[in-house]
Amino acid sequence: MCAMRTIEWDNDKSVVCMIDQRLLPGEFVVVTYDDYHQVAEAIRDMVIRGAPAIGAAGALGMALAAKQSSATSAEELESDLNEAARVLKQARPTAVNLSWAVDRVIDIAFTDKTEVDSIRDDILEEAQRICDEDVEINKKMANYGAALIDDGDTIIHHCNTGSLATVDWGTALGVIRQAHESGKHIHVLVDETRPRLQGARLTAWELEQYGIPYDIISDNAAGYFLRTGQVQKVLFGADRAARNGDIANKVGTYMLALAAKDNDVPAYAVVPTSTVDLSLASGSMIPIEERDEDEVLDIQRKGKPIAPEKASARNPAFDVTPNRLITAIVTEKGVIYPPFETNLTSACSR
Amino acid sequence: MCAMRTIEWDNDKSVVCMIDQRLLPGEFVVVTYDDYHQVAEAIRDMVIRGAPAIGAAGALGMALAAKQSSATSAEELESDLNEAARVLKQARPTAVNLSWAVDRVIDIAFTDKTEVDSIRDDILEEAQRICDEDVEINKKMANYGAALIDDGDTIIHHCNTGSLATVDWGTALGVIRQAHESGKHIHVLVDETRPRLQGARLTAWELEQYGIPYDIISDNAAGYFLRTGQVQKVLFGADRAARNGDIANKVGTYMLALAAKDNDVPAYAVVPTSTVDLSLASGSMIPIEERDEDEVLDIQRKGKPIAPEKASARNPAFDVTPNRLITAIVTEKGVIYPPFETNLTSACSR
Repeated sequence: MCAMRTIEWDNDKSVVCMIDQRLLPGEFVVVTYDDYHQVAEAIRDMVIRGAPAIGAAGALGMALAAKQSSATSAEELESDLNEAARVLKQARPTAVNLSWAVDRVIDIAFTDKTEVDSIRDDILEEAQRICDEDVEINKKMANYGAALIDDGDTIIHHCNTGSLATVDWGTALGVIRQAHESGKHIHVLVDETRPRLQGARLTAWELEQYGIPYDIISDNAAGYFLRTGQVQKVLFGADRAARNGDIANKVGTYMLALAAKDNDVPAYAVVPTSTVDLSLASGSMIPIEERDEDEVLDIQRKGKPIAPEKASARNPAFDVTPNRLITAIVTEKGVIYPPFETNLTSACSR
Repeated sequence: MCAMRTIEWDNDKSVVCMIDQRLLPGEFVVVTYDDYHQVAEAIRDMVIRGAPAIGAAGALGMALAAKQSSATSAEELESDLNEAARVLKQARPTAVNLSWAVDRVIDIAFTDKTEVDSIRDDILEEAQRICDEDVEINKKMANYGAALIDDGDTIIHHCNTGSLATVDWGTALGVIRQAHESGKHIHVLVDETRPRLQGARLTAWELEQYGIPYDIISDNAAGYFLRTGQVQKVLFGADRAARNGDIANKVGTYMLALAAKDNDVPAYAVVPTSTVDLSLASGSMIPIEERDEDEVLDIQRKGKPIAPEKASARNPAFDVTPNRLITAIVTEKGVIYPPFETNLTSACSR
């Protein structure tokens, strides 16, 4: 197992440390940042990715910003923090956890507070609380979710939703890990998850460490395995869930969920309530990030494109899976079944 | 444009020439074979691929076998050819064109014939006829299919079904090319088509030459573009169609067709009748080839896997799309609509 969390605050050096996920599984490198602009860039460039993990990065980025600020009054600090919040939030648009975590830090900072250093301390404390809570929440979701998994299940899993996508433990992959640790025999078909191959690179790397048997498949092959009756469950996370249970997640999730539905295989989204955006009525309102075409054209990101020299590409990073394709949403408040609007709203307010 | 067909018989040297499709788009290399075993290996290793193209390869491989044979009697030649047919047919199991073409050559060879050299000539002539007919058939399908395409259409196309997948012109891509040449403005979203990337490598290469605008997308992204209303048609070929219109095609076709159906976008399979296997009642009877895991793990096939060192993979090369997801099947006998069983059987007997 990895000795460190995906992202941590180093108390001695007052810096943010994170595993550089661009280099896995080939190299395990930890990078440190002492400037919140670097953290924003790390989020943008996917040094760190996964909705809960970039939420934590946003919160710790705010702690860095508070430390960096030379403000001597609460007003000055508020102004600096608002600027940092703006920079961090716009690093990636789809996962709501990023703005959720940044806003949570801002909210704690200026509730009747005037002493600047004490605000700085409160911010760091709140950011670390967000990190700790993420791990607790994942463990709760894992327990609820593992009860849905049967001994002997073959599970298709999309993207990476493990320790690396969170502070620790994981969401959908956390469920699989929990089921495995409780003694259930599970086989995972790992969607490679083009274009950035989070499945083939990161999920496979995690499964190796947990000792969970798996095979990588091209994303195209999920339908074949579902249609030939070789799959019992489909699991994925989310970057943002709308009030009605529509889910924005890594591109490809929609077609996977369609194929699960077409073969009566349950599809579970494992989603902390911090990923639920009750302000949005449906998934069509979720902003979908389109990333650089090079992620598609230059598969191994080494300047050696596989396509013709002049080729162009389109690269939406997420898609929206309508609630009708989702069997249940596993949250830390329990397993939510349809009607999602009522049940999700009620769970989020518990 | 490419000056040569995808596969040709060289009359001067009595060898089979084909474009090495493993090297495109980086290198354009023509390989020649004087032994039918090499042709079988070329089919297996995907030097040549695409159902109609490997049909032509099977036929020309038989012509090579006839030439190679030292038989002095029709009986001896028949025995040698039966062995060659066995070797060639088993090179790849899913596309029915391979055995269809090999059987057609065998049938022509031994209808009341006794003179060995004349049989050899007849075999070569029949193999070349199969090649010429393929081009004619593609042109006919292109005309029928192009009438289904509207000016301004954005079309998702899976795998490669162009000149390179046939002797010349193409099936589904031939339809797109015909619509383009008739003055319709078309934009193609090219599914990259993992694992072997026939879309990103071959279809993009062909579209460049035809001057048809396109963007490559990861296969995962097709659902996003369909669901956001950016696509008007979905086109693909087939490796084998069953009597009921179920279609085995490059893996990923099933999920693509599902997503088309879910968004009321027409999905057309462009399929010569040589690809229709009337002996099979449904697609579940079509043998699906599973290929080497390295095609998934080592994406650029250069000994540099992207996945963890010990990772394993599953690699079904095809999947079956049920007839309910197919709007129409374009053949050289016309556009076939449901009920497919009746209409396909009748078209094949015309």
